[in-house]
Amino acid sequence: MSNYIESLGKKAKAISREVAKLTMDEKNAGLVAVAEELCKQSQTILKENAKDIQAAKDKGISEALIDRLRLSEARIVDMAEGLRQISALNDPIGDMRDIVQRPNGLKIGKMQVPLGVIGIIYESRPNVTADAFGLCFKTGNAVILRGGSDALNSNKAIVQAIWAGLCQVALPQDALLLVDDVSREIATEMMRLHKYIDVLIPRGGAGLIENVVENSTVPVIETGTGNCHIYVDEFADLDMAVQIIENAKTQRLGVCNTAESLVIHRKILKEILPKVEQALFSHGIEIRGDASVLALSNQIKAATEEDWGMEYLDGIISMRVVDSLDEAIAHINQYNTGHSDAIITENYHNGMKFHREIDAAAVYINASTRFTDGFVFGFGAEIGISTQKLHARGPMGLDALTTTKYVIFGDGQIR
Amino acid sequence: MSNYIESLGKKAKAISREVAKLTMDEKNAGLVAVAEELCKQSQTILKENAKDIQAAKDKGISEALIDRLRLSEARIVDMAEGLRQISALNDPIGDMRDIVQRPNGLKIGKMQVPLGVIGIIYESRPNVTADAFGLCFKTGNAVILRGGSDALNSNKAIVQAIWAGLCQVALPQDALLLVDDVSREIATEMMRLHKYIDVLIPRGGAGLIENVVENSTVPVIETGTGNCHIYVDEFADLDMAVQIIENAKTQRLGVCNTAESLVIHRKILKEILPKVEQALFSHGIEIRGDASVLALSNQIKAATEEDWGMEYLDGIISMRVVDSLDEAIAHINQYNTGHSDAIITENYHNGMKFHREIDAAAVYINASTRFTDGFVFGFGAEIGISTQKLHARGPMGLDALTTTKYVIFGDGQIR
Repeated sequence: MSNYIESLGKKAKAISREVAKLTMDEKNAGLVAVAEELCKQSQTILKENAKDIQAAKDKGISEALIDRLRLSEARIVDMAEGLRQISALNDPIGDMRDIVQRPNGLKIGKMQVPLGVIGIIYESRPNVTADAFGLCFKTGNAVILRGGSDALNSNKAIVQAIWAGLCQVALPQDALLLVDDVSREIATEMMRLHKYIDVLIPRGGAGLIENVVENSTVPVIETGTGNCHIYVDEFADLDMAVQIIENAKTQRLGVCNTAESLVIHRKILKEILPKVEQALFSHGIEIRGDASVLALSNQIKAATEEDWGMEYLDGIISMRVVDSLDEAIAHINQYNTGHSDAIITENYHNGMKFHREIDAAAVYINASTRFTDGFVFGFGAEIGISTQKLHARGPMGLDALTTTKYVIFGDGQIR
Repeated sequence: MSNYIESLGKKAKAISREVAKLTMDEKNAGLVAVAEELCKQSQTILKENAKDIQAAKDKGISEALIDRLRLSEARIVDMAEGLRQISALNDPIGDMRDIVQRPNGLKIGKMQVPLGVIGIIYESRPNVTADAFGLCFKTGNAVILRGGSDALNSNKAIVQAIWAGLCQVALPQDALLLVDDVSREIATEMMRLHKYIDVLIPRGGAGLIENVVENSTVPVIETGTGNCHIYVDEFADLDMAVQIIENAKTQRLGVCNTAESLVIHRKILKEILPKVEQALFSHGIEIRGDASVLALSNQIKAATEEDWGMEYLDGIISMRVVDSLDEAIAHINQYNTGHSDAIITENYHNGMKFHREIDAAAVYINASTRFTDGFVFGFGAEIGISTQKLHARGPMGLDALTTTKYVIFGDGQIR
């Protein structure tokens, strides 16, 4: 373990005790001061960002990736606005609940408290820097950020502005630490820092997440990929089904709650297929179907085994035909990524059974999978969408960055 | 990855879908049938246990460890009784809560569901086999057990009885799988089976737990060690303090919620020290103190830096003097293991500050740390005491073996 990363960890652990003690008013004042400082320093941030953009161009990085890296005056204003919105949210820290009295008179309950030190490893979007800081700080945590090497100059400039904002209201700037050695070795060492980091959240593509899961000894909250399914039951309202399919696939292509796979009951296949084709082809979507689908249409391509497990993030959707609800559920549980799946049905029993048996973070009856989102769910913020089962599952709001401890009020009780 | 462990994982994942669907009545019938079968097969189990005991003796294993390995008619009856008690508990699976209606009419709430596949790696106590099965099965999970090599014959016999019980009421016996290749390599492979195992719970000593944390890619729930502190504030009721200290240290020596460290405010040191000595020495407890304590007594040994972090699990306690509550909190947060710590005080501000600032699973005002226990807390069962912050913290009841998923009731909503 290098001295560099260990000393960062130690520093974060020490300062986390101080951050945990801040009142809601103090934290909100900090967030607002940081928002102002980001706007004030926008020219400096853009200058540093331009260096990253130029370096990325020199390396021949794709235009799509460069776009994710690029900041603008408007994007910085958005970052600042995001922090102001976080400052307006309720802060759950210090709340106590479920205080019960036991037979011996002990009062036992739970207090909501910060996790302590949160590590975030992310890729090229520099706006994550301000966003992640804001959410962790609001919940009384210290945070260690390790951004992508491509965005190092941008991230450093943003962090400078955050530090300046915190200083202005006399809050500890070490509440945010940036890993400015962006080598792979240091990232791997950070994943083994369980002595100092309480939770690690990777934000980025499947490769990054898999790397963190494989190598981390720090508990990880996995924000996963979404191979989301829509199952059209034999008892579906077909017009509703077509509307939901069109929305869930085409409203936005590159996000994790977009539908990637259709499962259709054989009894309504003939009737619904032309409508689905019409709705999706009008958006230029390619459909890849199994043999039963191919037999009914020559505009559809053949799906391979690989297609059933794909998160396309693109204008493609797979289509599979089943003979029963049980077959649909088995198929979905085999190939989904535990994100969001929907059934379209007017049958009470089938809807409830789908709710019960589908193994995913969000299970829908008669609605688009596109709703899986912390803002839509009413959390006011989103750290990501967890596809794992421990601690947090589904869209994560501020609560996911907290834990509880038992607090016990006694009067001299002994055992 | 060997075929052996991968096929166990696959089998568990597949059967977990079936176990998750069982009703509360079906699961309870299974638990009762297994309890009966354990009693019926007790002679076979004791015969197999005798083989393990003999092998342990031949290997020269200590009498204390052999005692943990040893079963008796009475211990088997206890195991069966434990399963009957679990059958009587409420089963949270399928409960829905917090269903709210969003502006667009979507109803969004949480359903409590099994984790899926739980892996448990444990040491020599064979009674864990029945206990762990019972808790996991009650919550609708499949379980893979990997017990210690010393107890393999006993564990196999217990598992045979469990399988027989499940068969009798036509429930899937694969709900419980036993890793009967007890090599280290297979254990390590089991820790990397995140494709099939949803959570891994190590039950045993610090070495086992550290090994699992270091090597597992499966999310781990850490059941940790307890270096529990009692801080006697300057405003303490000293008689209450002495009673609580005596209870917390001496009521049971070898358990994780026993007090291992006293922190005393300097202002009351002179007055309380003789009383503490009298209370603890009468139980043969050794006190190891810092310089301030040594200056007042020649019956106390000198503590070294190492003592502050020790979980003795033995008749020893450390004693440290502080000049303020802040110093006490800083000391405890530096050396505790995040288990249980108590303040003895009649001062409102100091008690509330201690509650807020101590970083532990259970924080007490004026009560013995010995109460940190799932049964005492009223959970009716205990899988262990989590000293980590994610998912479950403190005593873990059945809820710790479950997760939630969002269930959404729509009416055709699109985004």
